[in-house]
This record gives sequence, structure tokens and C-alpha cells, in this order.
Amino acid sequence: MCRHLLQRGYSVTTTTRTRSRAEPLLAEGARWAETPAAVAAASDVVFTMVGFPEDVRAVTLGPVGTLSGARRGAVLVDMTTSEPTLAIEIAERAASQGVHALDAPVSGGDVGARNGSLSIMVGGPVEVFEAVRPCFEAMGTTIVRHGGHGAGQHAKMVNQILIASTMVAMAEGLVYASRVGLDVEAVLASVASGAAGSWSLSNLAPRVVAGNFAPGFIVDHMVKDLGIALAEAKRAQLALPGLALAEQLYVALQAQGRGRDGTQSLVHALAGLSGLSWPPPPR
Amino acid sequence: MCRHLLQRGYSVTTTTRTRSRAEPLLAEGARWAETPAAVAAASDVVFTMVGFPEDVRAVTLGPVGTLSGARRGAVLVDMTTSEPTLAIEIAERAASQGVHALDAPVSGGDVGARNGSLSIMVGGPVEVFEAVRPCFEAMGTTIVRHGGHGAGQHAKMVNQILIASTMVAMAEGLVYASRVGLDVEAVLASVASGAAGSWSLSNLAPRVVAGNFAPGFIVDHMVKDLGIALAEAKRAQLALPGLALAEQLYVALQAQGRGRDGTQSLVHALAGLSGLSWPPPPR
Repeated sequence: MCRHLLQRGYSVTTTTRTRSRAEPLLAEGARWAETPAAVAAASDVVFTMVGFPEDVRAVTLGPVGTLSGARRGAVLVDMTTSEPTLAIEIAERAASQGVHALDAPVSGGDVGARNGSLSIMVGGPVEVFEAVRPCFEAMGTTIVRHGGHGAGQHAKMVNQILIASTMVAMAEGLVYASRVGLDVEAVLASVASGAAGSWSLSNLAPRVVAGNFAPGFIVDHMVKDLGIALAEAKRAQLALPGLALAEQLYVALQAQGRGRDGTQSLVHALAGLSGLSWPPPPR
Repeated sequence: MCRHLLQRGYSVTTTTRTRSRAEPLLAEGARWAETPAAVAAASDVVFTMVGFPEDVRAVTLGPVGTLSGARRGAVLVDMTTSEPTLAIEIAERAASQGVHALDAPVSGGDVGARNGSLSIMVGGPVEVFEAVRPCFEAMGTTIVRHGGHGAGQHAKMVNQILIASTMVAMAEGLVYASRVGLDVEAVLASVASGAAGSWSLSNLAPRVVAGNFAPGFIVDHMVKDLGIALAEAKRAQLALPGLALAEQLYVALQAQGRGRDGTQSLVHALAGLSGLSWPPPPR
């Protein structure tokens, strides 16, 4: 994402916890700063993308966080998948210092980041969004403002809610197919292009069949995201039983030591529930 | 499906409970018979497609069912989505009279039937499958033999298991989006083409947004199919909690008087669970 900004001619200052990770970007012209605050002091627009909401809080609102160094009129853009309420809190704290904020989580994975084809879901004032849009257009192809502060995070939660039960569908379909003695690849040939089809089925089921549980997207991050979605649904007084089930199956994967697996590892939770391993033997 | 056989030059004899439904086909050259047995007496290959397993049993094994009229060496092909165990029973009873059988349920809906683009999932002996293949090729574009008797039904159950929780994903995503105050169409623009994407999201979510709950595929038939899948999973000693949840949500729709709605009506069950109607008001 940073590289795409450099390639469009933007002047970029960057920091990471592990400087060596930034070296390729520094070689391409990015400047190094020691802290998020120092990045902000050098920047008109400050993008953050970290792991968990507590990381967002630290890197944004902490002692050497971006807000502490931000110039008046700057824009803080958090692209982490995080809590809508935290996005609102950041925006309020920023506003009190004359600083703007947007929440702008993405989907599309490492491939989308590399290719500049991310879907970017934005929350915040329309004029701030429009000011930052050229930067978003460097990184993504689907750029939609969903409303005020937090709306980008809510849209991303919809994305994760959709993935959660679609993955349960995939895992249960694969486990059933194997358990009743079908050739799973033949079944995928019959069903993947029809009404049962999904991105998960087309892209992740073949990895399961190949015994490939490397991430894509790790279970630990899915547990984080689904926990946020469940908390937000509860706050909105909305019961989402499919989401709750999916979250528990991912927690089961963490219990199995599979937190760093890709989410397609879900077949292990489904099989394990019945005392089986993947692939279950035909019965 | 019958019309495609006629158009390929096959001689077709047909029956239905309501003769007027068959008139367009009779006008195109199909011959009428009064009973399934009479159809079978006039045919080398006998296709049945009805509603529920009890209908399959009646039309195949009943007093005027296809088997009672079938010639030695004929093939009974049941294309209803039905029980794998019933498919095996039909095949065994047929074999005792020198008659062959295949189970061959389909996916692709009324559009796939009309266009000859169905996916046909076949169970039964390979030589019987190969003998009937030209007929299948008149009706479908994806034709896969999945194993012996019942395997076609098992493959179709995988299809329905996949649809079941993918639809829960869609319904929960839409209800959450509406409840937290997002523009649902804007959210679909952000998420439908990425990792959250599915056939359901692309094809049925827009109908929900438009308030269109006409079927496609009716809730009553989904309850039938998911009941078969749950029974088969139990028989295979396999717990499928996502499938069980989905089945209960469709049962809830029946309880709401929505059994003849399209399956996208699932948003009503999800909203109703929290005491809301679709679309839920933002909170």
C-alpha cells in the first residue's frame, strides 16, 4: 500500500516496530521516522494499519502515537479492522486538536494490497473523504464511503459476518462430502459454479483438499474481528446466531493450537466436534 | 428438461398430476400417458422429478409407479432431490425386476432447466450412467457421476449444506448492515466481489433490498432438503451445527407463514429473532 503511494509520487514517511521490514520501502524513497508521532509531524495524511484495537489505540492515542505529533488540519486514517466505537473516539479526540480522522478498513488481502486492488470501506465526513480519495485510489479499486465515523468499520464487520458463516458452509460441506465417501474434488466440480458457490468455496476449498492450511487470513485475526462484530451486534440489540456459532468454531481452532492457520482450517474444528480429524474417514 | 429431449429428437411420453401443465409439451410432440407405469411401459429411460421423498416413493414404487410398468433393461432416473437411502432402495427393488436405476438430482433452478444448463449429480453404475449420458447432456452442462446408488443425492446434499449457511451469512450480514444504519446497497458494492462474495449475495441480496421475496427456491423445499441432510449426517455420525441452525431458521419462516416464500426470506427469521421486522430500523 505504501509502495503504491510512492509510485504515484507522494512523499512518504514510515515507521514499523521492526525497521528491517521497512527497508525495501526506504530503498524506494520512503523516509524513516522513529515513532508514529514523528511520522505524523512530517505528514498531511497519516495511515495506520496494525493488528488489534489495543494496537490502534496505542499507535494513535498513545504517548508517541500519531495524534500527539499531528499538525492542525492533518488527517489520521486508520485502515486496521477495528472497533467502530474506537474509530468514533479517535475522531473526537482528533477533532479536539483540530485534526481530522477517517476509518478505512480494507478487504482484498495481501494480494489486493500488492496489486492496488483493495476494497476500501470509509467512515468519516464527506469532505475529508474526498480530500484523501486520491490516496485511496492509489491503493484500491473499490472505494466507498459508508457514512460518518465508524461506518467504514461497520461495513467491514458486514464483510466479516458474511465470511464467517460462508466459511462454516464450506467446512460443513467438505466434511459431509468426505464422511459420506464422496470424491471432494468431483463434488466441487458439480457445485462450485452454481447457487452453492462462493469465493471461499472457489478459493479456499481447493487448499483444504490439497491439505494446505497456510494463511491467507489467520484464525487469530478472525476471532478478533468476529468478537468485535458480536459486541457491535449486541450493542445494536441484534442476535446473530450464525455469527456466534462461527466465532466459537474459530475459538475451537485456537484451542487446537491452530490460531496461526488460515481460516480454511475450520474443517478441523468441524471434524473435531465429532471426534474426527480432517479428512474424516468414510462411514 | 422434457423440451430439451424433444428438441434433440427423442421420443417422449409424459404424465403429470395436472394434464394442463403438460399441454405445451404435448403440442411440441410429447405423448401423454395416464400413469407413471404407462410412461415406463412406453420408455427405455424414465425420468421422474417430483416434490418430496414420499412422492418419489409413490411415483416410483407405488401401485401405478414407474417400476410396475418398466420393461426389463429399462433405466429409472430419479431427478428429485431426495433421500440417498431411498435411491438405494429403488435401485435394489428395480434390480430384482431386471431394471436399472440412477439418482440424478440437479442444481441450477428453473433458469438452468429452461436453458439446458443444469448441474446434474449422478449416482449409480458407471455403464448405466454412460448409457443415459446423452439424455443428461440435453438437459445440463455439468454432468458428474459421484459414485454408486445414492451418491448423486449425497452430492446434492453437499450443495444444500453449502447454500444453507451461506444464506445465513447473507441474512445476518444484511440485517446487521441495516440495523447499524448502513446503506445496504453501498455495502454490497464494497463486499460482494471480494472474499465475502457468494452466488447468494450477488443474486438474492439485491432481491431482499428490493423487497422481493418471490421464489426462486421455496422455503418448504429447503426445509425438506435440510431435514434429509441432517438425517444423513446423523446416520454418518457427523454433527453439523451450522446446518442445524440454518434448518431451524427456515422452520421459523414456516412458522411465520413464509413456507412458499423464496429462501431469501431468511432475513425475516433473523430480524424476527430479535423482535424486529425486515428491514430493521437503525439503532
